Amino acid sequence: MTSKEKDTLTVALIQMSMADDPRSNLDKAIRRIGEAASRGADVVCLPELFRSRYFCQEEDHSKFSLAETIPGDTTAALSTAAKKSNAAIIGGIFEKRTKGLYHNSAVVIDSGGSIVGTYRKMHIPDDPHYYEKFYFAPGDLGFKVYEAAQSKLGILICWDQWYPEAARLTSLLGAQVLFYPSAIGWFDDEKDEAVKMQSAWETIQRSHGIANGVFVAAVNRVGKEDHINFWGSSFISGPFGEVLAKASPDKEEILVANLDLGMIEQTRHGWPFLRDRRIDAYGSIASRFID
Amino acid sequence: MTSKEKDTLTVALIQMSMADDPRSNLDKAIRRIGEAASRGADVVCLPELFRSRYFCQEEDHSKFSLAETIPGDTTAALSTAAKKSNAAIIGGIFEKRTKGLYHNSAVVIDSGGSIVGTYRKMHIPDDPHYYEKFYFAPGDLGFKVYEAAQSKLGILICWDQWYPEAARLTSLLGAQVLFYPSAIGWFDDEKDEAVKMQSAWETIQRSHGIANGVFVAAVNRVGKEDHINFWGSSFISGPFGEVLAKASPDKEEILVANLDLGMIEQTRHGWPFLRDRRIDAYGSIASRFID
Repeated sequence: MTSKEKDTLTVALIQMSMADDPRSNLDKAIRRIGEAASRGADVVCLPELFRSRYFCQEEDHSKFSLAETIPGDTTAALSTAAKKSNAAIIGGIFEKRTKGLYHNSAVVIDSGGSIVGTYRKMHIPDDPHYYEKFYFAPGDLGFKVYEAAQSKLGILICWDQWYPEAARLTSLLGAQVLFYPSAIGWFDDEKDEAVKMQSAWETIQRSHGIANGVFVAAVNRVGKEDHINFWGSSFISGPFGEVLAKASPDKEEILVANLDLGMIEQTRHGWPFLRDRRIDAYGSIASRFID
Repeated sequence: MTSKEKDTLTVALIQMSMADDPRSNLDKAIRRIGEAASRGADVVCLPELFRSRYFCQEEDHSKFSLAETIPGDTTAALSTAAKKSNAAIIGGIFEKRTKGLYHNSAVVIDSGGSIVGTYRKMHIPDDPHYYEKFYFAPGDLGFKVYEAAQSKLGILICWDQWYPEAARLTSLLGAQVLFYPSAIGWFDDEKDEAVKMQSAWETIQRSHGIANGVFVAAVNRVGKEDHINFWGSSFISGPFGEVLAKASPDKEEILVANLDLGMIEQTRHGWPFLRDRRIDAYGSIASRFID
């Protein structure tokens, strides 16, 4: 461990509901960042696409007007908030890259207010009322880590959370915490399956922590928007998959946890999975299917 | 779905304790296979290295005498049992490949008594009292699927269970069920951590089912041998990670579940993870670390 690395990192997840007016969502997010900082947060993470309601429930050209550039209004506001609160911020942005080209992105802003980098969602879903392939081009920046709060932060967005490859590659780059800004929920007619769905959602993300010996921090929105009942349940888990903090399924909350980063090395000593990977035998992972 | 594929598959896991005498372990396994078949099993899976106590707790050259060839005495006995019970069998073997070269392997025998294939454990652990790198060369057959009981069976062994790559590659080959013959437990001084360890063990294996939309069947031994309290808790989970059947932590049991194989396609339609994999961006998985 170098002397510049932190021993502990206080992480805050802003579980919130979104109103129709993007301005009011930003205002609320900024207030919550201030509250999180007053609770000692070194890093504050907002949900996916937090500026607006989850517009991907219909394919509607008019919704492209919600997109903005990076840097842009939202990054400017987050930058000011970061400086004021002396905390790093991760925020989801509907990114307008050029005319007619959009990404589902997240920016990392350090406590000095500078944009450290942008992550563009790599795995884009497309299912009834999650019509993301209509709105977003797949990310072309690859998997990355971002240095902020004297730590290495991995950012993955929602659908990415189902892919062990994304977590592995981000961890191999040195990530200490995998953040998953999310927007996921159940339809009214799925109520019987909601428990199973939430369990799977939590299980797979905790498993990424186990496989890689890293922390996981998943933040979801709450409330019903059109078809989707967003299930909240934001959580933070440790490098052996243990849940350290968990939010309610239906209330706005600031979920805070103080992460003992030394647990990464300690866990990997006890369970040295990285040592024994069969890198000589993994090449076919880059196949769609092996038939 | 082709007409030759089964709609349902009855799987039985033999959770057992091992005695000093390899012959008595084989006799018990054979009896249990018969009992499992009488309960309708199409496939019966025995624990890792079921012929003997878990000898890897010390580095002891004399233990190489426990190894045997494939085919050999154990496969002959399992072949007879398979024909008699009309069930496919998966059994762990301490494989002697040639003088001084050994593998931690498992054979798949079909209900006609033929050896379908051998899997050689790819990820070899080495930790206090799990000195497997002393005994076993890493597998060189790669990840495979085995056709038996009109199904495609994936076999991975114990330490392999912590590696998402192993589950992914086996699933991309078409596996419908991932079997994990295992030998895992806790030391007396780990009693406080045992719950967390078992939870991580179950979580990561259930997650492989979720990521790939397949069934998982993990079978462990029970009882204390020298340093290790083997924690049993064999389980079978479904393609969205739901636990379908689970054994006790400390008793011999035959765990049986009737798998609705149609759930694989149904689950993948609802959660089409295979469709959206970013195979253009996974190449670095074959790196030890990205630094």
